[in-house]
Amino acid sequence: MSDPQFLLTLNCPNRQGIVAAMSAAILACQGDIKEAHQFDDKETGRFFSRTVVSFPTEANGAELTARFGSIAEQFCMDWRLQPTGHRSKVLLLASKFDHCLVDLLYRWRHGEFAMDVVGVVSNHPRETYNAIDLQGVPFHHLPVSKDTKPAQETQIKAIVEETGAELVVLARYMQILSDDFSAFLAGRCINIHHSFLPGFKGARPYHQAHARGVKLIGATAHYVTVDLDEGPIIEQDIERISHNDSPDDLVRKGRDIERRVLARAVGLHLDGRVMISGKKTIVFRD
Amino acid sequence: MSDPQFLLTLNCPNRQGIVAAMSAAILACQGDIKEAHQFDDKETGRFFSRTVVSFPTEANGAELTARFGSIAEQFCMDWRLQPTGHRSKVLLLASKFDHCLVDLLYRWRHGEFAMDVVGVVSNHPRETYNAIDLQGVPFHHLPVSKDTKPAQETQIKAIVEETGAELVVLARYMQILSDDFSAFLAGRCINIHHSFLPGFKGARPYHQAHARGVKLIGATAHYVTVDLDEGPIIEQDIERISHNDSPDDLVRKGRDIERRVLARAVGLHLDGRVMISGKKTIVFRD
Amino acid sequence: MSDPQFLLTLNCPNRQGIVAAMSAAILACQGDIKEAHQFDDKETGRFFSRTVVSFPTEANGAELTARFGSIAEQFCMDWRLQPTGHRSKVLLLASKFDHCLVDLLYRWRHGEFAMDVVGVVSNHPRETYNAIDLQGVPFHHLPVSKDTKPAQETQIKAIVEETGAELVVLARYMQILSDDFSAFLAGRCINIHHSFLPGFKGARPYHQAHARGVKLIGATAHYVTVDLDEGPIIEQDIERISHNDSPDDLVRKGRDIERRVLARAVGLHLDGRVMISGKKTIVFRD
Amino acid sequence: MSDPQFLLTLNCPNRQGIVAAMSAAILACQGDIKEAHQFDDKETGRFFSRTVVSFPTEANGAELTARFGSIAEQFCMDWRLQPTGHRSKVLLLASKFDHCLVDLLYRWRHGEFAMDVVGVVSNHPRETYNAIDLQGVPFHHLPVSKDTKPAQETQIKAIVEETGAELVVLARYMQILSDDFSAFLAGRCINIHHSFLPGFKGARPYHQAHARGVKLIGATAHYVTVDLDEGPIIEQDIERISHNDSPDDLVRKGRDIERRVLARAVGLHLDGRVMISGKKTIVFRD
Repeated sequence: MSDPQFLLTLNCPNRQGIVAAMSAAILACQGDIKEAHQFDDKETGRFFSRTVVSFPTEANGAELTARFGSIAEQFCMDWRLQPTGHRSKVLLLASKFDHCLVDLLYRWRHGEFAMDVVGVVSNHPRETYNAIDLQGVPFHHLPVSKDTKPAQETQIKAIVEETGAELVVLARYMQILSDDFSAFLAGRCINIHHSFLPGFKGARPYHQAHARGVKLIGATAHYVTVDLDEGPIIEQDIERISHNDSPDDLVRKGRDIERRVLARAVGLHLDGRVMISGKKTIVFRD
Repeated sequence: MSDPQFLLTLNCPNRQGIVAAMSAAILACQGDIKEAHQFDDKETGRFFSRTVVSFPTEANGAELTARFGSIAEQFCMDWRLQPTGHRSKVLLLASKFDHCLVDLLYRWRHGEFAMDVVGVVSNHPRETYNAIDLQGVPFHHLPVSKDTKPAQETQIKAIVEETGAELVVLARYMQILSDDFSAFLAGRCINIHHSFLPGFKGARPYHQAHARGVKLIGATAHYVTVDLDEGPIIEQDIERISHNDSPDDLVRKGRDIERRVLARAVGLHLDGRVMISGKKTIVFRD
Repeated sequence: MSDPQFLLTLNCPNRQGIVAAMSAAILACQGDIKEAHQFDDKETGRFFSRTVVSFPTEANGAELTARFGSIAEQFCMDWRLQPTGHRSKVLLLASKFDHCLVDLLYRWRHGEFAMDVVGVVSNHPRETYNAIDLQGVPFHHLPVSKDTKPAQETQIKAIVEETGAELVVLARYMQILSDDFSAFLAGRCINIHHSFLPGFKGARPYHQAHARGVKLIGATAHYVTVDLDEGPIIEQDIERISHNDSPDDLVRKGRDIERRVLARAVGLHLDGRVMISGKKTIVFRD
Repeated sequence: MSDPQFLLTLNCPNRQGIVAAMSAAILACQGDIKEAHQFDDKETGRFFSRTVVSFPTEANGAELTARFGSIAEQFCMDWRLQPTGHRSKVLLLASKFDHCLVDLLYRWRHGEFAMDVVGVVSNHPRETYNAIDLQGVPFHHLPVSKDTKPAQETQIKAIVEETGAELVVLARYMQILSDDFSAFLAGRCINIHHSFLPGFKGARPYHQAHARGVKLIGATAHYVTVDLDEGPIIEQDIERISHNDSPDDLVRKGRDIERRVLARAVGLHLDGRVMISGKKTIVFRD
């Protein structure tokens, strides 16, 4: 049986002594640092830190939690300390195209992500996803039109609050969120855009890409903000295409990129490796 | 000693019988097809073909050349038939940054490309490139200002004509060409743009990329047209970057992408693998 | 309504006149070549060709089929002429890990591949795949042990023959096939190996990769031959890993590579773009 | 004028309190942590750390250096503290192929690497590199044969010692080093192998790759150890190839991969981002 591990993530205005205070507290609780990243973002003046700590017992982790409050106050930290096994509650939103939804559910079923899927919301009915075994996850059919959008978003908000969802994933949810709803989800909602942003913003990006004759297509996972397609980017990737690919071929090849980019972004987020700094993200990988 | 090989490239309005006429003529001259690509671009209605043919003797190739005129006329073909060893005359244009120039000259010296460099033109003096051994290639220092641009472009045109340059490569030549000069070079001038077009058009794309917080940067090689940054794309590639990269880091990493993308585009062009079809390119690879 | 299209693939000993004969026959049947590749493999002395032809009517395609026999005989061709919409019968074999199986079934359901799945064979029971909706595809549970392998393979052979399966896909089927069974499947069976061959042949390649400390892992799709892990390679791809990845992380990341490499290989095969030439493949892409 | 920055790299047997001791010392010297990575390698039981610290004055950095000795002793650390501007002395070894040599010299001239090239050693004469402007770097022609290898390696050792070279780069130096010389260079010598190790060890890897029919070729940069081709891997990369590529094409495409992989490895090493842990490397990137 290996020792219990905790993940400590924090960010605060940069100044001297942050790591010294943090690591002294960890040591006082008999913590052993297994992996850590620190970064001072000179653009925003904030300091970001992600630390995996091993303790002799769970109690030591609890002790660090108790102790850390005063340090956090002193440095004005946003912080979180959780067992590394913590499973986040995640709500998935989808529309007609189900490739991202299917992929995330597959990874969830196979334990790839530390998450509990607390619900699936779609503006399409359950029959659209007949081939998908939701394994008991509640499905919410919330159709939406221009007129009903405020009411529909209120329903989704209620689901977020009732389920305690910590993360909302727009898995090719093809509705534009209102500013109000975007603000409500700020920092806890990941979208997949089917282009290599900032190229081909807006609608039908694969058709735009085809018309322009690019040789690579891509996808972008980003946090949702009020500015559509302008949220902090978490992850991007591309595939090579050729003159012989029709717009439909791009859509098909794009599905592979989208699901892989979204899955990576969700995995990095759940693993506490992504932090928002202004209009960008800090992503601690290796 | 292997048999002489010829490269036949052609394009024409699509209709039945093009390949039949072409291959009958090849057979009549005892040609043996080693590698071929054909593509009917339904968007432009044009048919594109690239064929490598082996002949028992050089004379058979000459015979095919003689014979092909009437076929070409019948099908309204743009065509070219040349020994595969044909070396194109290439003129290189550069500005202060020399990484693409150095790279192309290195590949030329090592016989990677079927080209003869007939000159290097720069708006900077020869001393800028002191570390470069031009091995006898004429260097033309043609400084340029807003007022002298028409005269300077006229000088470059004269060099193109005097040298018989078949291809002009803008190897990070940082001057915007006039419409007139762009038209003069149409279809025989490759530029490298230091972004993943259509993202980050215009000036200082790496600084734009840094400001946006993208996770990949790229470069684009395209034919020069009157529309700046809108010419038919030949090749693109990308590299991964992180939050820890400054704009200077992007510029540095970008140099590697630029030189490799430009070299691939030039190589594909010289190898007769790239053809312009409307606003796009057909690229015959594998 | 667009014109009916046919796919003509062929290979034969190389000699002059193959394309001339082929294209004359196509023209005689009023065929219009939309896309074509030809390649003379000088290592094996064989000529390979893939041609997409459009006809005014289906009858013209039938006429070409009738006519082509004598040409094929003259040039000793292996050949096939089929409507481009032809759906191949495919049998999928899987073991415990279902990521490749799930992925291929997803693509099949969404019409990505021109295939009809005629059955799924596994040495594990149907319950292993409870989350998978097979949509009526017959499932064959054929457990296997050292003693029963000959009998089990005989059963699979019978299924291949009864269903008329044109392609067998080993979608992480973790049994070593007998020489006899491999020979039976020669040229019509694709396997996915979970390493970047020829590195890490044999068992537990991700653990081998972890032990060696490589910085990239990969997967390889190849035709099955009697020589294990030595069949003609169709497609390979890789992902970057780091010192922080455990063997389990490699297995997880590997799943993404495996399913994508296998899907590409199957798609290329079904699209008539892959041909075996000795111990290698010719793959006609762009 | 920005504050002076220092890079502190260390590794030691893992135990509690390393980061606490390190960061307390940094704080005591008024240091501000800008970027840091820590990693406990459970396989070797060693702890690795890389920290960039900003100080109000150079004197604070000197003070930390003075103070750190006792901490290092207490934790049995291998450590180094240097201004981030420190330029390492680097000796380059090359043979006939000069693409890696040319590339490293280009990057050096353009200030990409924090290095001073203290010499170039080759078993070929200076004339081999006529097109290279060494800009005053001493060139040592040290021909080698089976009989003279011990004497030649002794000469190189002498150059390493006289120049104080901190890093030796085998930039396609095509001689097998003796065990004794490999041991002498352990931990401070980077080699580029022209294959995707562990595939295609030994001689003529591109010809091996061609014979096997792989669809990707690669290159590997690793630290030199007594076991040829088995040293800790720093970096690897690949390129896609096709059936149409001859062994010569692979050699040509391989040059691009080799120079880029070697340059990345050298850059990471000079930046203090690579540490050896047993038979592997820890590479701190993002």
